[in-house]
Formats: sequence, structure tokens, C-alpha cells
Amino acid sequence: MKNKVVVIVGVPGVGSTTVTNKAIEELKKEGINYEIVNFGTVMFEIAKEEGLVEHRDQLRKLPPEEQKRIQRLAGRRIAEMAKTSNIVVDTHSTIKTPKGYLPGLPAWVLEELKPDIIVLVEADNDEILMRRLKDETRQRDFESTEDIAEHMFMNRCAAMTYAVLTGATVKIIKNNDFLLDKAVKELVEVLK
Amino acid sequence: MKNKVVVIVGVPGVGSTTVTNKAIEELKKEGINYEIVNFGTVMFEIAKEEGLVEHRDQLRKLPPEEQKRIQRLAGRRIAEMAKTSNIVVDTHSTIKTPKGYLPGLPAWVLEELKPDIIVLVEADNDEILMRRLKDETRQRDFESTEDIAEHMFMNRCAAMTYAVLTGATVKIIKNNDFLLDKAVKELVEVLK
Amino acid sequence: MKNKVVVIVGVPGVGSTTVTNKAIEELKKEGINYEIVNFGTVMFEIAKEEGLVEHRDQLRKLPPEEQKRIQRLAGRRIAEMAKTSNIVVDTHSTIKTPKGYLPGLPAWVLEELKPDIIVLVEADNDEILMRRLKDETRQRDFESTEDIAEHMFMNRCAAMTYAVLTGATVKIIKNNDFLLDKAVKELVEVLK
Repeated sequence: MKNKVVVIVGVPGVGSTTVTNKAIEELKKEGINYEIVNFGTVMFEIAKEEGLVEHRDQLRKLPPEEQKRIQRLAGRRIAEMAKTSNIVVDTHSTIKTPKGYLPGLPAWVLEELKPDIIVLVEADNDEILMRRLKDETRQRDFESTEDIAEHMFMNRCAAMTYAVLTGATVKIIKNNDFLLDKAVKELVEVLK
Repeated sequence: MKNKVVVIVGVPGVGSTTVTNKAIEELKKEGINYEIVNFGTVMFEIAKEEGLVEHRDQLRKLPPEEQKRIQRLAGRRIAEMAKTSNIVVDTHSTIKTPKGYLPGLPAWVLEELKPDIIVLVEADNDEILMRRLKDETRQRDFESTEDIAEHMFMNRCAAMTYAVLTGATVKIIKNNDFLLDKAVKELVEVLK
Repeated sequence: MKNKVVVIVGVPGVGSTTVTNKAIEELKKEGINYEIVNFGTVMFEIAKEEGLVEHRDQLRKLPPEEQKRIQRLAGRRIAEMAKTSNIVVDTHSTIKTPKGYLPGLPAWVLEELKPDIIVLVEADNDEILMRRLKDETRQRDFESTEDIAEHMFMNRCAAMTYAVLTGATVKIIKNNDFLLDKAVKELVEVLK
């Protein structure tokens, strides 16, 4: 009996965290338990412990080299947790930095994590744009629908590469407006 | 002198098997011989030998973990055959499972197969949809043109990753309606 | 202190060489020095030294196996240069050959190069088509806008795979008509 490691990714504003939380809640009712780990939070904890950042949004302003080192440490810490529980890893397929798209799970992180399933939460470009404009809790750089489409494209490419390297499956779940329940139900089926 | 290993992939209904059979027939007239191996058939033989399935369509209903183990064994069996003949491997770039897109040739299968060329047979989404609706010999889950487009997208991503890992080329051949001869001719050139 | 290795790629006609040259010139004014290495030129030098070709356009007519061997040697030669200078490698994400898209930086070249950033220069399909038609200095096979779109798609897939394997970032820079200065400025920021 091996615990499952499911990675859930999506561009900022797509609602992957919301879908994940609701699916985990549903599964708990059926006696299936998952621990949710936010990859960025684990990275933030590590970076904060090292005195590199104070706020979470500063993480992606760090030089790529630093981000990579912290990613690796986060992968190791999560792999330890997977020894005692099913894990959902809430993260990004690629992180948009000033130097370009940084893969969230480069080869050496994948080797540590050994994910079973990669879930790609998607929505329409304009839905994502509107959700970002409405969300005043996070500071975000402005992106056009074309930018968002480009980011989602690269996320698919990265996710498929993760799958080829690990043998994981890539499940695409649409989280369209007014259809959150449908997305949650699909994720519940994937996590069962 | 090394025999060629050419992998031919496409979504269900795109007609990759038909194009392959006709191209092999053409090449035989010119004295160039290829043995066609259907990856799924080799997997089916192995799974049947192990008593896991009775019908071929049951293969993709197996848990991903089982599919992966059988993939690896199929890769090994085909690599043995390539020692004595040019091989065309008829397979899928990704297999659509309830848990998501499973790469047909994960890293460890590629290491065994060492393909020279990956041929991606494509057609328009609506052409594929119509071909599936007309084909009553196979039981298939219904998919919209959008679903088919998504599957073809992920197939391109996976194929390109296979190429980067092995140095194989990725050849895209369109098998559009009424233009089967064109597709066959293109494949003949690639296999020469 | 480690020198930077930045790989710049784009389909033929997109103007990646022009953007690169202008950005390097700007950076020199600010005291930041990069050596530009054209991957194809290094490959051409090696192939010429071996007596395989006389003109550069003949390179891509070589059998994939020969191209691969020469790629590897070029990667090694460039890695040597990076020991003493920042390097921009002007190359292609994938090379379109009669046997399909050949990855410009297969796994074994990446291991030698260890790039920090991969810059993907893009433009609209029709802009690229027009630039090719106007450019009479190079002999090129005719491609439709659809062919160009396909090539750019595969370039993104390959670039993202390079990033996952090495931890490099992938920066997409648009080199649209009349906006060369904008593209140059963006590249300058990436190279800083």
C-alpha cells in the first residue's frame, strides 16, 4: 500500500486551490483523507527560515537560481510527508518570472516527489482575467488574455514533460464560471 | 547497419493504422521491408498471458500502475524484434484514461526502444469525430471536438518530449478526408 | 561567479539573430559583454572540417544521425567557451528536416551546455511568411502560415522540455513588425 501523491497546478486566478479544498472536504465525508500541501508555502517556510523573504509574493522575485534551490528542498520535505499520508501538492506547472517561465517541477524535484497524477486546472482566458481583476487580496502583474493563453500553453507542455519523465498521468479539469461543482466532482473522481 | 525503429502515433480514429499498413505495402514493392508491431497488441498479449484481461478494450481500464508495468515489458519485447528487422511501432503518444493522459512511451520505455522517428498522424478535429461516429467496430467513449483537440495537443507535447530524450525526429503527417494517398506517400518517404 | 549561457531560438525568418545582435550592442554600452555563438556556424565549422559540407544550407540536408553527432560536438565546443565569457547561443529549438522536427538541443547537448535561460523569439505566422518571401539571401523551402504555426508549436514544446531537464527559464519575446526596438529592449532586460 502506497500513499498517492497528486500534484495540482494552474495559472494564478484559475481557482485550483478552491477546487482542491472542496474536493478534499468531499472525500473526507467518504473516509478518504488527503493532506494538502501548498508547494509555495513550503518554499516560503524554507525561504523564511533562511531569512530570504518576509512576504510570500516576494518568492517569485528571487533570482531563478535561488528559487531552484528552494524548490528542491521543498520537494524533499513533501516526499517525507508522503510516507504517512496521501498528499495533494498545490503548486504551479510553470512560474512566470522576469526571466521567463520557470518549471515548477524540474527533473530533480520530480525525482524526489514521484507524483502519480498531475491535475491541470484550466478555465477560459477571459474568465481568468476577470477573476484576477476581482481578486484584491493578491498583488499581481497585469496580464492580457493573450499572456494568460501563453502561460496555459507552456503549463501543458511542462505537465506533459513531467508525465513522460515519471509515468504520471495528466488530467485536465476545466473550472469554468458557474461550474465549480462540476470541477470539484471531477477532481473527487481523480483522487479516489 | 542498424534497423530502423519508427513509432507511429495518433488519436483513436485518425487512421494511423490504415496509413501505416498502406505505406508498408508500398515499400514492400520497392524491396524495403518493415515489420508492423502494434504496441497495444503486444501489451494485450502480455496482459492476456498474465490473465489480467480478455478483450483489448479492457487494457485502458486497467489501473495506470498496471498499464505502466505492461508498457515496459512490451518495449523490451519489441526491442528484441528490432535486432532482426526494421520495425514500425503502431501506438499512442498518450492514452486517455479516467485518471488523465498516460504517456505511451514514458522515459523507461524510450530507453528500451530507442526510436529513430516518431510519426504523428493528425487530422482535423471534426474529421476525427465523424470517423469515430461511423466506426461501429470499436466501443469508444464519446468525445467532443474540443476534447479531441486537447488530446492532439497533449500528443504533440509528449511526442516532442520523446524526441528531446532520444534525439528522434517528430514528423507530423496529415491524414485528411479524401487525401489518404497523400498521407501514405508522405509516410513512404519518411520510412525510406 | 558563473558566466551566463543564454540560448536564443526561433523559426527561420523570425529575426532572432537581428534582435540578438542589437541587444548585445546595447549591453556593450552598459559594460555588459556577451559573446554570440551561432550553433549552426559551430556545427558548420565542424562539418566543414570533416569535409561533409561546403555551404551552410547543406547542413540540414544531412541525415539526422550525422546532424546529431555534430550537434554534440558543437555543444562541447561552446561549453568550453563559456568558461571565459557570457555566451548567447543563437540556434533553433527544432530543425525542420525531411524526417521531421529534430530537437536542436537533445538531452545530451543540454547536459553539456547547462543553459540558464532559453529565449524563444516569436512573431505572427503571416509576418514570418512575408519576411521569408522578402529575404532573397537564403534559399528556403516554401512553407504556409499553417506550417509555420506548427513549427512554432513544436518549438514551444521542445523549449519547455529543455527547461524541465535543466531548470532553465523559457522567455518568449515577440518580434512583431515595426516593434523591433521593443523586442531588443526586452532581450536586454533578460540578458542583464
